[in-house]
Amino acid sequence: MKIPEILLVESHHKPGSLAKILQVIGDCGLVVEHLNAVRREQDKTVWEITLEMDEDVHYGLYEKIEALPNARLLGKSDRVFNRHRGGKIRMQSRLPLATLQELRDIYTPGVARVCLAIRDNPWLAREYTYIAHSVAIVTNGTAILGLGDIGAVAGMPVMEGKAALFDKFAGISGVPILIDERDPDRMADLISAIAPSFGAIQLEDIAAPACFRLEALLRERLAQPVLHDDQHGTAVVTLAALMSAAKRVGRELTDCVVGQIGLGSAGIGIARLLQAYGVEQVVGADLDETALERLESMGGRRAQLPELMAQSDVVIACTGVRGLIRPEWVREGQIIFALSNPDAEIEPNVALARGAAYAADGKGINNALGFPGLFRGILDAGATAFTDEMLFAAAQALSARAPEDELVPDSLDPSVHQAVAEAVCEAASR
Amino acid sequence: MKIPEILLVESHHKPGSLAKILQVIGDCGLVVEHLNAVRREQDKTVWEITLEMDEDVHYGLYEKIEALPNARLLGKSDRVFNRHRGGKIRMQSRLPLATLQELRDIYTPGVARVCLAIRDNPWLAREYTYIAHSVAIVTNGTAILGLGDIGAVAGMPVMEGKAALFDKFAGISGVPILIDERDPDRMADLISAIAPSFGAIQLEDIAAPACFRLEALLRERLAQPVLHDDQHGTAVVTLAALMSAAKRVGRELTDCVVGQIGLGSAGIGIARLLQAYGVEQVVGADLDETALERLESMGGRRAQLPELMAQSDVVIACTGVRGLIRPEWVREGQIIFALSNPDAEIEPNVALARGAAYAADGKGINNALGFPGLFRGILDAGATAFTDEMLFAAAQALSARAPEDELVPDSLDPSVHQAVAEAVCEAASR
Repeated sequence: MKIPEILLVESHHKPGSLAKILQVIGDCGLVVEHLNAVRREQDKTVWEITLEMDEDVHYGLYEKIEALPNARLLGKSDRVFNRHRGGKIRMQSRLPLATLQELRDIYTPGVARVCLAIRDNPWLAREYTYIAHSVAIVTNGTAILGLGDIGAVAGMPVMEGKAALFDKFAGISGVPILIDERDPDRMADLISAIAPSFGAIQLEDIAAPACFRLEALLRERLAQPVLHDDQHGTAVVTLAALMSAAKRVGRELTDCVVGQIGLGSAGIGIARLLQAYGVEQVVGADLDETALERLESMGGRRAQLPELMAQSDVVIACTGVRGLIRPEWVREGQIIFALSNPDAEIEPNVALARGAAYAADGKGINNALGFPGLFRGILDAGATAFTDEMLFAAAQALSARAPEDELVPDSLDPSVHQAVAEAVCEAASR
Repeated sequence: MKIPEILLVESHHKPGSLAKILQVIGDCGLVVEHLNAVRREQDKTVWEITLEMDEDVHYGLYEKIEALPNARLLGKSDRVFNRHRGGKIRMQSRLPLATLQELRDIYTPGVARVCLAIRDNPWLAREYTYIAHSVAIVTNGTAILGLGDIGAVAGMPVMEGKAALFDKFAGISGVPILIDERDPDRMADLISAIAPSFGAIQLEDIAAPACFRLEALLRERLAQPVLHDDQHGTAVVTLAALMSAAKRVGRELTDCVVGQIGLGSAGIGIARLLQAYGVEQVVGADLDETALERLESMGGRRAQLPELMAQSDVVIACTGVRGLIRPEWVREGQIIFALSNPDAEIEPNVALARGAAYAADGKGINNALGFPGLFRGILDAGATAFTDEMLFAAAQALSARAPEDELVPDSLDPSVHQAVAEAVCEAASR
């Protein structure tokens, strides 16, 4: 698996010395992700060079850099780790607490009046606590990113990342909850018992098939919205990208044959949403018999990989297997989304070179576009459960805001998340 | 029960008009807590007057104010409620998330490297997540303030208040966890399952006797510190005040007979800490037989109220019963802490008038002085459980910082909380 490595390399101020460093990197088959001058001295500069390197591969890169006449490898940068130091989130007081009177208003004795008001009318908790602005981000660590079952605590940096995005993009307090439990029934009991603390529940990076049963149980039991992001958040952003792509190639999405490669939580979530949207033909491939049966029970049909590629107008892959789709399988005019992160099933440029009409990977179709606005919208509406209409509305809002040369808009644009929130809130009130 | 009521009263600019309003308030037997001019016009001023009024009593105050020639009751102020609107806390990103590179570092793909580092060395979670700075504030709502069993959601404003204090006084992320469960064994299971999310667990406003068993179970099971604040946080602040008082009256605290009126969670917590500190004679009174037996099993003895008052050098009351201690029971030279909030068992000035050497109520001996520094200290030390030595160190730090005319220092002074944290951290490393 490729993960970012950041090198600190010193280059002397000689013409071509930086170019030689980059050439050596290219010769190792590596792509420069980011380049930043971190220190400049009289006759040399220290560069921070971000590469995606495979953990297990020895590229010989370090030796080759050392062998250059005007460069020196200083080591690896801790930039990514430094940004994580002390955690990425913090619970803060919204009030200054500078005076005794303020303390007496928000703590004892003043707080008693607010407690009694909520006791008498529980609905007031929405107004006078942070509950209506808070979402539990719940994981048991069984399917963290593409890393698999690494345990809940090792998944915390991802949950904090989600919480940081919730804050920045939607003004939501995301609270990571790491659960030391694998059984979906016991997980449902645990989450139900602490659910009153939050306005909504986001399930995150929980492996299939436990995630399906867990979500179904919680939706049945809880009075607040529950969303398994890997299924439905990803599905919303994928649907948005498909809406954009179908429009550009002049096809009705609902008439397309959709091939789903990989029927884990994301694959099943996407298949389900597309069917609900009106796609009639979904073909699926997976190594797991239970997953195939699940798709069939939903009205889809199974196929072998080459057959699926031959039949599908749209191909969506979420397998975690790098390079799974052979270039020769690509059909002229196909729309291909190879969504596994960080390594796609087929590189978009390879698919395009083989005649695909549109191709994208997980970097382009980023689920950070979905969940902040989805939750902001439903919390604002005070609705108790996500409906397909809300998910469609979110996808439409995203697709409508895609620039001409992209399938979805920029996830760093706050107005995008606001538009999703408004669309969801409006759909909730219909 | 008395809770603050805030009136908005308009007074004309006539000599004595404000005095007449305050006189009417005094005639109703009410004390002015706070007075604030919220608006001033050419010939009149609008005052915000904070009173502690009993919910169930009709004082005739409103009619009397209306009857004054130069005053008008405009209504009640929402100041307390306004300060609670939208909640008092917010989970925030510690990073600006302004650039794509930053997003890629803290979310995918960069976060994968941090996750893998923690998988390989779980201790790194202390450094690269917010866990070592976070405390779960757990309640089931069975003993919220003096309000009793009002349910976990109605207790949320108190938990948010604690979280706000954690942030302001100790830079700790306090996360309210409301649990819909009363059985201590099932509560222990629930809390254990989510415990990996946090650096420590604060139990809060959970009724006796469930709180005792719950805390014992968690201390046995969890690898991180657990503290029931109502027991031990209150005990630390009480011990600090007693250290100050004993020193001023020139007595050894350990030689005193301590009378505990009310043996709920706070009473038992104080008795336990005083015994551990070296107090040999603890006498207790309570209406509940089980509570008395608990004290006896700890080596204390039971007594009727008048007898207890006659025997004790120090009297500590945590009963929630206003005016329980009759003035005639007060002995010359006694130290009396009547800690129930918001209504003390005896008003300090009444106890002093009857010859008490020192008297204080729950406003003076505020548990907000304890928990922020206690948790900051133990988190900084990386210790796994609170010890009595840490609690003594915290009490000593508080007592040492009390101004000459007070028993404990000002809870709004940040240096006080820092001193407690340092004392606890140091005690942890001994």
